[in-house]
Amino acid sequence: MNPTAAALVIGDEILSGRTRDSNLHFLAGELARVGIDLREARVVPDVHGRIVEAVRALLAGHDHVFTSGGIGPTHDDVTADAVAEALGASIAVREDARLLLQAHYDRQGIALNEARLRMARIPEGAALIDNPVSAAPGFSLGRVHVMAGVPRIFEAMVASLLPRLTGGTPLLSQSLRILRGEGEIAGPLAALAAEFPDLLMGSYPFQKAGAHGATVVVRGPDGARVGEAVARLAALFPP
Amino acid sequence: MNPTAAALVIGDEILSGRTRDSNLHFLAGELARVGIDLREARVVPDVHGRIVEAVRALLAGHDHVFTSGGIGPTHDDVTADAVAEALGASIAVREDARLLLQAHYDRQGIALNEARLRMARIPEGAALIDNPVSAAPGFSLGRVHVMAGVPRIFEAMVASLLPRLTGGTPLLSQSLRILRGEGEIAGPLAALAAEFPDLLMGSYPFQKAGAHGATVVVRGPDGARVGEAVARLAALFPP
Repeated sequence: MNPTAAALVIGDEILSGRTRDSNLHFLAGELARVGIDLREARVVPDVHGRIVEAVRALLAGHDHVFTSGGIGPTHDDVTADAVAEALGASIAVREDARLLLQAHYDRQGIALNEARLRMARIPEGAALIDNPVSAAPGFSLGRVHVMAGVPRIFEAMVASLLPRLTGGTPLLSQSLRILRGEGEIAGPLAALAAEFPDLLMGSYPFQKAGAHGATVVVRGPDGARVGEAVARLAALFPP
Repeated sequence: MNPTAAALVIGDEILSGRTRDSNLHFLAGELARVGIDLREARVVPDVHGRIVEAVRALLAGHDHVFTSGGIGPTHDDVTADAVAEALGASIAVREDARLLLQAHYDRQGIALNEARLRMARIPEGAALIDNPVSAAPGFSLGRVHVMAGVPRIFEAMVASLLPRLTGGTPLLSQSLRILRGEGEIAGPLAALAAEFPDLLMGSYPFQKAGAHGATVVVRGPDGARVGEAVARLAALFPP
């Protein structure tokens, strides 16, 4: 069995429609590549209690929880404290994180003021996640991995973090575009899916430039089985 | 108090990284426009039990639940049955929905086969949601609104549905781009936020073409108060 994961996207701006999240899609692709199964995602606002509750709920059902957003210097950045509370850890400015920030701002001749120092608040016992973009680190506290919301920084943090985690068997995937309505495809596809219970088969309709049909995606850990199912499917629906 | 809402995006393809969801972002913008407060979103796979559980959990904390995905003709389309179970409603092929499909397929000279007929499975007591794109309807069962995953159809369904719902006071929003680091902005912004507890203030850093700073977004139901806060902010950070 592969390790399982949930994603928690934190930010009012996603729920208000101001910002279209891209971190979930990025994370989903990266986890699939290393064989960690993303089973659920949630989006909650920048509200302490809502983050605490979501972290606890998601931890209960998954091996890992990956969070995005809410670790900057402003008053609406409440993720680090919420995650600490969710896990019963104490939190304060930590010397290792403070030194990272101090070096970063010294290089730029900028003062490490009180607001910026908030980004060095790291729970006791957490391992820092490197931020090559703007120094302020993320952290892993047990099975919860806390990362920034800015996509460029989130993506860099995922890249630093994933090599530390134990993955599983990546699902291999093949897809077949079929130029028939989904209603034609559905019956034979359901029969095929029943014959290959070790594979996941999904059907995604498209309608583009006059053509319409569906892309059928077949996924599974065993490439030969995936190939066998796709060949059967192709024979059922010759072009 | 505005009505509250949660979104439930259903589909393996989002969690596997194959597809980047756009329906949540569209829905968030439309709900903000009519004064329904989107408070949470979840993404779950095409698994009956997971959908049942998520619908029940989200209904408990919100006035409305909007779902996207899983109402097509294929074996992985299990949303309608799961929503019916979550609300204890019976479900079967319903004559009004069957007639819509029959007329649609008759016009195209296509048979309404068993797979397509699955799309006429509608819970007892649900109100249909019009699908001007491909006929197969969505439905509202109580406070749960079930819509298609294909973005063009989802968007058309949201447009048919929203006029039926009672909205509230839309939050007005103004934003100010400030060409200072978030660490400079954070202290004065927190003080201003404490002075205007009726407003929401969020800070979103950017770094583009050499310039870096943050966009501060101020939201609230009273436009004059929003304007007042933004004027104060602009005076604190002259260009």
